[in-house]
Amino acid sequence: MNTQTTKPKKEINGIDIYGLHDVIKSFRNQPELAKSRFQITNQWLGGDSNRSTVGTFYAGGQQHEHKKTFVFDCGEPEALLGKDQGANPVEFVLHALAGCVTTSTAMHAAARGIHIRKIETSIEGDIDLQGLLGLSDQVPTGYQNIRVSMKIDSDAEGEKLEELKELYNFSPVVGTLRNPVNVQVRIN
Amino acid sequence: MNTQTTKPKKEINGIDIYGLHDVIKSFRNQPELAKSRFQITNQWLGGDSNRSTVGTFYAGGQQHEHKKTFVFDCGEPEALLGKDQGANPVEFVLHALAGCVTTSTAMHAAARGIHIRKIETSIEGDIDLQGLLGLSDQVPTGYQNIRVSMKIDSDAEGEKLEELKELYNFSPVVGTLRNPVNVQVRIN
Repeated sequence: MNTQTTKPKKEINGIDIYGLHDVIKSFRNQPELAKSRFQITNQWLGGDSNRSTVGTFYAGGQQHEHKKTFVFDCGEPEALLGKDQGANPVEFVLHALAGCVTTSTAMHAAARGIHIRKIETSIEGDIDLQGLLGLSDQVPTGYQNIRVSMKIDSDAEGEKLEELKELYNFSPVVGTLRNPVNVQVRIN
Repeated sequence: MNTQTTKPKKEINGIDIYGLHDVIKSFRNQPELAKSRFQITNQWLGGDSNRSTVGTFYAGGQQHEHKKTFVFDCGEPEALLGKDQGANPVEFVLHALAGCVTTSTAMHAAARGIHIRKIETSIEGDIDLQGLLGLSDQVPTGYQNIRVSMKIDSDAEGEKLEELKELYNFSPVVGTLRNPVNVQVRIN
């Protein structure tokens, strides 16, 4: 028997439902609190290698720090002339996409009372390297097609299941990829 | 004195120049060899946590394996209701972008004989979380603006320096973000 007076907690899919409702309520009352800013720094390590550091971000009207600083290395495989000391940048894009469709689905499912048991995602994307190498003006430099395959095991059936299958559309990385983003580059 | 007969090697910015020229030559002769496919798999770990594995890719007409398998965790910070067991997906997008402008610049500079001493990049991007939470149809789910600031220390001057400042445009991640990508999602 719990004799302590603690704030009640309810988790679905490992997501804090009351916390989620609090966030939604605060954004409805003050939409400017939803404006967030994410940031990283990166240092070239020579050749194909470089390292990013992720520590702080701005959300809910204030600056925050992650519990720890995250560090990631980019490299290129030997077949692409690198020393293979990290996944390459375009592979990190696919990782970001996988993480985002997964979290967005788990969170929105939780908000709808759908219990998820498993999500497994595989992604592949096509790039024509003539773009990177400047060999053709006709070839885009970036991804042309990305195919995402998600296997979701849940208690959803019928209409709920159809709804579940659309929840990835809330993903910020899906939105970032499907729509043109204003990328401004300043070099000193 | 080197008495061995080895293939001559020339590196600029840690990039194998002869290898680069060989790749360019082979893509010019057989453009279909430039068609590449990158791939990852991801598993939900519950709540805001999930893990990607990067091992294989297709390039130059064949399947390749990285020297080792790379594993990355996504999480969400506590301020965004997570357990903070990894950078979040949209932070990984910025890491991918930083890695890509850096490598693209170092590589194209090498091809032009420009020696780079240092590249440091900081990036920030704006997301309005009303999109993720489905609170407004007017708000995009993804990044609206991304600002990249690169500091490059090199031996380039005058016209060469102006040229150097444009090399990030070859970056596949810049191209991926600036242009709409066809993201197809299939759910089982």
